[in-house]
Amino acid sequence: MRPDDAIQGVDGACRAAEERRAEHLSLLKELVEIPSVSTDPEHAADVARAASWIAARLGEYGATDVRLIATARHPVVWAEFAASTNTDAPAGDVPTVLIYGHYDVQPVDPINLWNTDPFTPTERDGRLYARGASDMKAQVMACVLAVKTATECGTLGATVRFLLEGEEEIGSPNLAATIEAHADLFRADVCLNPDTGMIDASLPSIRYGLRGLAYFDLTVRGPSHDLHSGSFGGVVHNPLQALCELIAGMHTSDGSVALPGFYDHVRPIDDAERERAAAVPFAETDVKALSGVSELWGETDYSPVERIGARPTLEVNGVWGGYTGEGSKTVIPAEAHAKLSMRLVPDQRHEDAYGYLAGYLETHAPSTIEWELTQLAGGPAYICDPDSRFHRAFAAALETVWGRPPILSRNGGSVPVAGDLERLLGMPSILTGFALADDRIHSPNESQHIENWYRGIEALIRYLGAPG
Amino acid sequence: MRPDDAIQGVDGACRAAEERRAEHLSLLKELVEIPSVSTDPEHAADVARAASWIAARLGEYGATDVRLIATARHPVVWAEFAASTNTDAPAGDVPTVLIYGHYDVQPVDPINLWNTDPFTPTERDGRLYARGASDMKAQVMACVLAVKTATECGTLGATVRFLLEGEEEIGSPNLAATIEAHADLFRADVCLNPDTGMIDASLPSIRYGLRGLAYFDLTVRGPSHDLHSGSFGGVVHNPLQALCELIAGMHTSDGSVALPGFYDHVRPIDDAERERAAAVPFAETDVKALSGVSELWGETDYSPVERIGARPTLEVNGVWGGYTGEGSKTVIPAEAHAKLSMRLVPDQRHEDAYGYLAGYLETHAPSTIEWELTQLAGGPAYICDPDSRFHRAFAAALETVWGRPPILSRNGGSVPVAGDLERLLGMPSILTGFALADDRIHSPNESQHIENWYRGIEALIRYLGAPG
Repeated sequence: MRPDDAIQGVDGACRAAEERRAEHLSLLKELVEIPSVSTDPEHAADVARAASWIAARLGEYGATDVRLIATARHPVVWAEFAASTNTDAPAGDVPTVLIYGHYDVQPVDPINLWNTDPFTPTERDGRLYARGASDMKAQVMACVLAVKTATECGTLGATVRFLLEGEEEIGSPNLAATIEAHADLFRADVCLNPDTGMIDASLPSIRYGLRGLAYFDLTVRGPSHDLHSGSFGGVVHNPLQALCELIAGMHTSDGSVALPGFYDHVRPIDDAERERAAAVPFAETDVKALSGVSELWGETDYSPVERIGARPTLEVNGVWGGYTGEGSKTVIPAEAHAKLSMRLVPDQRHEDAYGYLAGYLETHAPSTIEWELTQLAGGPAYICDPDSRFHRAFAAALETVWGRPPILSRNGGSVPVAGDLERLLGMPSILTGFALADDRIHSPNESQHIENWYRGIEALIRYLGAPG
Repeated sequence: MRPDDAIQGVDGACRAAEERRAEHLSLLKELVEIPSVSTDPEHAADVARAASWIAARLGEYGATDVRLIATARHPVVWAEFAASTNTDAPAGDVPTVLIYGHYDVQPVDPINLWNTDPFTPTERDGRLYARGASDMKAQVMACVLAVKTATECGTLGATVRFLLEGEEEIGSPNLAATIEAHADLFRADVCLNPDTGMIDASLPSIRYGLRGLAYFDLTVRGPSHDLHSGSFGGVVHNPLQALCELIAGMHTSDGSVALPGFYDHVRPIDDAERERAAAVPFAETDVKALSGVSELWGETDYSPVERIGARPTLEVNGVWGGYTGEGSKTVIPAEAHAKLSMRLVPDQRHEDAYGYLAGYLETHAPSTIEWELTQLAGGPAYICDPDSRFHRAFAAALETVWGRPPILSRNGGSVPVAGDLERLLGMPSILTGFALADDRIHSPNESQHIENWYRGIEALIRYLGAPG
């Protein structure tokens, strides 16, 4: 086959995918209906069911090998597809592309804020509403369906391997060990990771950096049992008050993090990076429009794009303690709790994160209370060269579909696998995806923009025809 | 009957009560089994059932009149007993004693910390474990059974009226209006109010002061919906963090309340008061033993007795927001909530309490969030002369039973009715009771010391034989 025929073939594959849009959407809905909430032990069977469902599809679609790799908690789905034999690439030059995804989803609470049931995928205004629709079952299925279509049309220009985990939303506790234990299964020239997204439907995006994550439970303990505030108010330090005082002290008034040592290893933003960030069309007004706030917050020396992509943060993800029901109860609780997390940037180490918080608590916690800090998850930050041959090939595919080159930026989220694959297998990642910034991932009424998803499938078919 | 016969009669009544201890305890258990949680709409029928149960008993025991007075929420039980005709007191000198109590109870959560079911009264180590056993169904039943016994034995030296409300644990929202609307039913020379307690079982106590209460819900709102902390951490002010910052600023580092104006009307502690407080056998070690803390907290210029009885406080009774389940969720919540309450002292006005908090929030809340403050309850502080003839008579009855004069002190709790009865009907209150400081009222595993309760019934019979 001559190069022209190959291109002809990819165009044909894209047309084939277009003709099967309804069928593809039905398949996505089937997967989204499975409530694979990885953090909740009550949904463990659903998580396993999601893994089996995907493995079955990969087998039907022509994978040469499909495996469910058990971990301490939720399985990894692995599969391999052979490159199509009728492409013109010399045998030795066919690259191997590892496609990463996760089939688990976030919890649904607060459930009362959903307009429709989170596991009954609902089409409305060109979007598919469901928990996990955007993060990231639509992205996983875009890859699965692109590989299926390319295999059927004979345009798969790479050996494709899938690595689909079920623990991303709980910090991927078993992923690195699984990659290490089965290194030969996962080895590839590049990882295609569609777990980041686009700023809006007109702006295709490739990310070249991710923030790391560290997640903690903090408990503050005071009296041995709940007390009556009339009898003990004014003589016993209220653990809820002490917790609030500790949390309040974790930031300075200018929005920076006050934990000792927190910024010691943060890689400064150089001029080139600053210039690239300035070119990203994401301004204060975009933050306001997407979040509904009237005023921004944070380190004023950095732009929103820099703060989200290249600066570390500390967040209070949950606080609870005392009486939280209807009406009043005059209690001084025995305990107060918080969930705290950090987004880390190069060259912070997630292994140091516990020490930042513990060091602060050791210095600032009053002797009237006791505290206990537990780390639930930790993953490294990631940064790579956005000008590699694989990145250029992917950028070309996006440009063909959207008619403009992609935005290159760093992402504020955390996808620990990118760092793990670099460290363990020396593999760079193409970080991309067809989720949009207003998809409300992790929130009630999450949705996936359906037309954008169809375009994503086309871009993936094009990339897999000429993967770089 | 000569005075000696009257005393003989009271001794006989006390012996009669002693012989019926088992029967009396059974009656207390019957009342305690009714889960009359006034704050919870799901328990509204139980609250009504508790009222009816008591009204039925009062009728059986010889009340000349029993009424259930409806309010906007839970009814007031009213009853009247005639003074015994065979006492020696001249007709015009028979005083009227109003007995106040509440038959509602606190919620039970956290339910998992109870050793036995909160509404299955359980005897263990000389105590009766149940929600509301000590606060204050045992106190109500001690009065009911003392009046029953005195009526049967012909030793009731006062016209006795009962005022038993079902809304004390929600701040008595309808009580003042009910007293005003039915002033003639409630008029009396003195109110006997057993809703305060004793420091320990060897120290009978009369309180001559109470703290007022104001209770609030505070909500802080930020983004229009929950956000992903990876996408918006560092650019949006987290409402949970903002709430913690606001709460932390409500106290200074020396333990005093930082709300503007909060101390403006606080009556200073004079030398006489300070001397009386110093005589109360309740030291730092007692606070530690009762609460389980290793170190006290609060205004260091005041002793624990002064801080609890004569100084105002601000407490954080509950905080909640964000993800509070198992595992991790990287969310910036749209809202954060707190329950806050104040204990007020003379001459602070509970009507000013909202202004103290709102004034602070207006000054200190950042423009990055919005706040909403709702007052759920408010009641005045109270102080009276502990040397009135009624107080002296009650002290004598306690001394007869315990063999020592009672401790006179101010109480840290809030019983709004004392202030209401003084304001509306010019009536002083004898604040007393047979609850102990380690009864864990408002907490899991609340209990009533049973032997102390029997003694309380005897003291009440003695007092009602010679009420002053």
